[in-house]
Amino acid sequence: MSAEVSQPLESDSLRSAAPGAQTAGAKDARPHIALCIGDPAGVGPEIIVSLLADAALGERARVTLIGNGPALEAAAASRKLPVPVSNDWLTVIDWRGYDRHFTPATVGADNGAFILESLQLGTRLVTEGDADALCFGPLNKGAMRKGGMQEEDEMRWFARILNYGGTCGEFNVLDKLWTARVTSHVPLASVSSLLTAEKVAGAIQMLHGALVASGNQAPRIGVCGLNPHNGDNGNYGSEEGDIIAPGIELAAERGVTAEGPFPADTIFLRARAGQLDGIVTMYHDQGQIATKLLGFDIGVTVQGGLPIPVTTPAHGTAYDIVGKGIAQTTAMVNAFDLACRMGLGSRAQRGR
Amino acid sequence: MSAEVSQPLESDSLRSAAPGAQTAGAKDARPHIALCIGDPAGVGPEIIVSLLADAALGERARVTLIGNGPALEAAAASRKLPVPVSNDWLTVIDWRGYDRHFTPATVGADNGAFILESLQLGTRLVTEGDADALCFGPLNKGAMRKGGMQEEDEMRWFARILNYGGTCGEFNVLDKLWTARVTSHVPLASVSSLLTAEKVAGAIQMLHGALVASGNQAPRIGVCGLNPHNGDNGNYGSEEGDIIAPGIELAAERGVTAEGPFPADTIFLRARAGQLDGIVTMYHDQGQIATKLLGFDIGVTVQGGLPIPVTTPAHGTAYDIVGKGIAQTTAMVNAFDLACRMGLGSRAQRGR
Repeated sequence: MSAEVSQPLESDSLRSAAPGAQTAGAKDARPHIALCIGDPAGVGPEIIVSLLADAALGERARVTLIGNGPALEAAAASRKLPVPVSNDWLTVIDWRGYDRHFTPATVGADNGAFILESLQLGTRLVTEGDADALCFGPLNKGAMRKGGMQEEDEMRWFARILNYGGTCGEFNVLDKLWTARVTSHVPLASVSSLLTAEKVAGAIQMLHGALVASGNQAPRIGVCGLNPHNGDNGNYGSEEGDIIAPGIELAAERGVTAEGPFPADTIFLRARAGQLDGIVTMYHDQGQIATKLLGFDIGVTVQGGLPIPVTTPAHGTAYDIVGKGIAQTTAMVNAFDLACRMGLGSRAQRGR
Repeated sequence: MSAEVSQPLESDSLRSAAPGAQTAGAKDARPHIALCIGDPAGVGPEIIVSLLADAALGERARVTLIGNGPALEAAAASRKLPVPVSNDWLTVIDWRGYDRHFTPATVGADNGAFILESLQLGTRLVTEGDADALCFGPLNKGAMRKGGMQEEDEMRWFARILNYGGTCGEFNVLDKLWTARVTSHVPLASVSSLLTAEKVAGAIQMLHGALVASGNQAPRIGVCGLNPHNGDNGNYGSEEGDIIAPGIELAAERGVTAEGPFPADTIFLRARAGQLDGIVTMYHDQGQIATKLLGFDIGVTVQGGLPIPVTTPAHGTAYDIVGKGIAQTTAMVNAFDLACRMGLGSRAQRGR
């Protein structure tokens, strides 16, 4: 059984279509996750079909899936699994879109519009208190732009639709190691000019807050330098002394301790050895090169700093293997589990 | 027994002091390696004492060690191994320097001067045909500057003392994966402005040449992009299309094939899966973050492009563990073995 909605942005019709959501206010100890399939042309539907095929999931969570019938049917066929249907812990919303047509493994405007509509619907479920956290399958930024996204990435898009103007940024989570970055989807040539001590301090504080919220009461945070060999005492750049160290001091003045700056090519060895819980990087690939090597198949991205918990697998849409039924589900499972932990934390905070 | 020399730059006195070197012209199938201890204040002497304690080394190489008595004695004591002495495959030169005093784990001008003098001596052994390749323990650039180095790094220093004006650059070697970089010891903010299609092509050609020289006749080379997600079709920078792709085409016109540009955060996953033999990176940490994670304890640095083969462990002087006798020797052994392979290749080329 699946509920069909035609106006996802009208919460009245949504609530009537989502029976699970109606009981969200009741005292159910399980976190309630709003789950989007992400890009219908990517592997998202497949790995979500696999995730939901595990009946034990219902013991630790309730789920409202914002899916799409044809995409889920194709995904289920590729995995040789049943199409997800609503049950006592799962509510399936079939968002058909406005007669949209999705071609697998293709960057299309229809796919992008579907992604944006379904994420908006999922976000609304959380902001209106029906769900505790949002979790979604891999996105395609190109499709999202074709579908209408004006922002440089989904982080900024979420901030806009949430009317959020504060500090926010992606976290990358690998088991117990969290990374945050001071700059993200910008040209490498712009990174240095975008760094400020205030932004470094903000990233340290945001990462500290997220680690505490996820249950680590005394997180050990390390901060990367920017230049080769940490600038080699100013021989190859001076941002370490001019910007990053002052940023670490600023965070310390505000009560959040972090160590560094450390040379970027060895800090991840320290983390792998268990000496750090969190790392603040200065630019996208500084962290991504390391975290993909440390665990490409297990990494989770958290849209950090936003008023609601938002998680997704760190990997992409993997168009090259769509429909083959072979996409790994570990990162999706980890993203879902982290959404559960963060959702419960957020609920506890709201309850205070 | 050790031979003491007071004027390392005088090759006559050097030859008389180095009995092994005198037979270098004879038909000995073993490569002859000029071996320097690097920074006497670092772990170089220790790992070289361990390297030379393996008597089987003499079956595959002859060695002229440019050491320092007190540093080698302290190193031998820390490893509970004998101090290296000259024998039928090893010649030990004790370069005492000009009454220099070395404090362990300290960045000193005396250490730096010793490093420069001993490397100059080792280089001369190779350029004069006494040895086939130069191999050295970890250096400290800060000490080298205090000791008189004017260049940005040892690569440029070697180029100068070798009177070499052509393309050169460091390679990082991990087992079968070689990496080269288009820019190296420069501020991250300068990287973009330093990239040209010509330099990208030059790095591809140099890496191809080194791989062929090391025995790989058809190396598969991949090239990194510069920006996050390869610039995301120009949204986060355009160097991929403006500079890097034209550089790859330029190399192809000159007969050297390479693939790319690939996003920097996933290209090393392809390499780890065995799909690439060489990677050209755009900046220092793009490669170093990855290669240190893939094999911090095994990596070798090759000073590539120079007229003589030069290798060293990729790790540093490890001041924090000097004298504890625990520094791993794998990278030193790998650097020595690669110097042997490259030295034989170079000898064969000279013989043609």
